[in-house]
Amino acid sequence: MPLGTEKGQLLIISGPSGSGKGTVTKKLIPCDNYALSVSMTTRNPRPGEVHGVDYIFCTKEHFMEIRDNDGFLEHASFSGNYYGTPISYVEQKIDEGQTVVLEIEVVGALQVKDKYPDAILVFLMPPTFDDLRRRLIERGTECEDEIERRTRRAREEMVELKKYDYLVVNDDIEQAMEDIHMVVKAEKMKPHRSQCKIEAFYGDNKNEY
Amino acid sequence: MPLGTEKGQLLIISGPSGSGKGTVTKKLIPCDNYALSVSMTTRNPRPGEVHGVDYIFCTKEHFMEIRDNDGFLEHASFSGNYYGTPISYVEQKIDEGQTVVLEIEVVGALQVKDKYPDAILVFLMPPTFDDLRRRLIERGTECEDEIERRTRRAREEMVELKKYDYLVVNDDIEQAMEDIHMVVKAEKMKPHRSQCKIEAFYGDNKNEY
Repeated sequence: MPLGTEKGQLLIISGPSGSGKGTVTKKLIPCDNYALSVSMTTRNPRPGEVHGVDYIFCTKEHFMEIRDNDGFLEHASFSGNYYGTPISYVEQKIDEGQTVVLEIEVVGALQVKDKYPDAILVFLMPPTFDDLRRRLIERGTECEDEIERRTRRAREEMVELKKYDYLVVNDDIEQAMEDIHMVVKAEKMKPHRSQCKIEAFYGDNKNEY
Repeated sequence: MPLGTEKGQLLIISGPSGSGKGTVTKKLIPCDNYALSVSMTTRNPRPGEVHGVDYIFCTKEHFMEIRDNDGFLEHASFSGNYYGTPISYVEQKIDEGQTVVLEIEVVGALQVKDKYPDAILVFLMPPTFDDLRRRLIERGTECEDEIERRTRRAREEMVELKKYDYLVVNDDIEQAMEDIHMVVKAEKMKPHRSQCKIEAFYGDNKNEY
């Protein structure tokens, strides 16, 4: 970490299906000092996917070794392949002063917060339940049963809202982005994230006064 | 509280002597939705002081009755007169959606936080210890012994910083103001302060999904 650079933070963008967490995350990453948390996977790269950008590709043996050493913030398997968020990658970026963004569904988000309590948990929410339903329908990628299932799950996920640090309403995407930037800036003012400012305050006078 | 108005919050601006908390508070109050916490006192009004603006003036008996009913966030006596921050006034403003600003020294601030844990504690700090000393000297209102005493106390007060919610460096006053506005806006996004947004989300569909 360069001298005088405050450490970064882990920002978890979560919320129900249809909250727009994917879109918000995509817009956050190009912003100054934001970095996407890159997942590790045992599946083979698809054409065009870049190691270290889209995923960190690894063998099953390597993945299991990390898992057994408690080296993932969270991990799961789909269709015989393993996926996980390596703590080491996140911590390296945080040490560099970056805000590492992890976009994840609600259950996973709460697991990460358990493991990494200093993470900032943002719950993204459409302004109304009707908006959420409309977004799922307009997306057009899910059948009616799946939409019903997702709205039911959204209702369950809303119960977890109180465990989150912040609630951001995603009505207007620009406003939602501004709200998230505000949260990140306010969090940087927490005393435990302000070591550099405190050191600058004392300067060479720590013992003089 | 008008329908759909989110409750306000208690914002405590605190910090060592010379941190500029008085100046910052004076600049905050005219801003939208900020209100100064008005103290209650048993002393007589001075010429020009307005009841309900500068102080809530009251009899000693009335003051003691409130104190005995635990109705002050904090209270103290100076030169035979009593001063206190009445909870009822603060709560009324909070119910109206206002951010009530209480400017107070460090010991008092921590007492208020104990009594009202939902208060937002901001520690205001000059960029360096040398700046703090220089500000106390330039103020020209204190003798050398008093300046020594205040810098010593500032050092002790810095130890309490970790109990605060936010650290704001008061180097440039406009930046400090912006930082405080940011803190207030971020705090409004805490789930427990977002009841209106959550109700708007459900609308008439609370039981439908």
